[in-house]
Amino acid sequence: MKAHTKLMSSYLDQVNWNTDGLVPVVTQDAESGRILMQAWINREALQTAVEENRAVYWSRSRSKLWRKGEESGNVQKLVDVYLDCDNDTVCYQVLQIGGIACHTGRESCFFQRLDNEIWKTEEPVLQEPSTIYGNAGI
Amino acid sequence: MKAHTKLMSSYLDQVNWNTDGLVPVVTQDAESGRILMQAWINREALQTAVEENRAVYWSRSRSKLWRKGEESGNVQKLVDVYLDCDNDTVCYQVLQIGGIACHTGRESCFFQRLDNEIWKTEEPVLQEPSTIYGNAGI
Repeated sequence: MKAHTKLMSSYLDQVNWNTDGLVPVVTQDAESGRILMQAWINREALQTAVEENRAVYWSRSRSKLWRKGEESGNVQKLVDVYLDCDNDTVCYQVLQIGGIACHTGRESCFFQRLDNEIWKTEEPVLQEPSTIYGNAGI
Repeated sequence: MKAHTKLMSSYLDQVNWNTDGLVPVVTQDAESGRILMQAWINREALQTAVEENRAVYWSRSRSKLWRKGEESGNVQKLVDVYLDCDNDTVCYQVLQIGGIACHTGRESCFFQRLDNEIWKTEEPVLQEPSTIYGNAGI
């Protein structure tokens, strides 16, 4: 049974998890190439993402699995998963349901651009956050 | 003088550096949108990148500034810098000189794709690493 279990989870073993059992994950829109967000995953998050075919993260602030879109409905359908050359960073390529990845109601979390040493907000709010998180989503 | 110094470095102060003084940085090709690599920066790396108009990182293994391309010649010209909604992740958008970001000689470090629970290498080696790092580059 042990060998079987090991074989079943070998892609998880090949990730160089840090001392907290985490690695960073970068999430990219599979169609536009836009970088939507950066978060963290542990073994369970990656395995769950692959099994459920959706982006799943580890919430460091809440110390629990975070199925993206479970409150907002803005689920990220998993298209592909990549691992980098050092095996210590993952990339999720996703289809972003609702077109909003950021909790501020924007498409991407990377909406502050450095302009003459000032971070400028350049991207519109597509939906007010209060209407995204105000009710129980899926 | 203190107020002046603070004003001059305010974009650096606005980054939520972690307890090690670092944040992750995701580097994206400004033209293709391809995610090239993920690394780490500290205040000095970000300030140096902005001042020198090239991607600069903090090497955690060598504990020193890492001007990308200083050995290989594969410099990353800095096009834009973005900060995410939590101010704890940066994105460098770059022009990748030489077309190779990865130390393995590939365009991108994210060349292992998960296929039926196996990480498969999908991207060609454009240049043998020994010929990239075998001499003193710029």
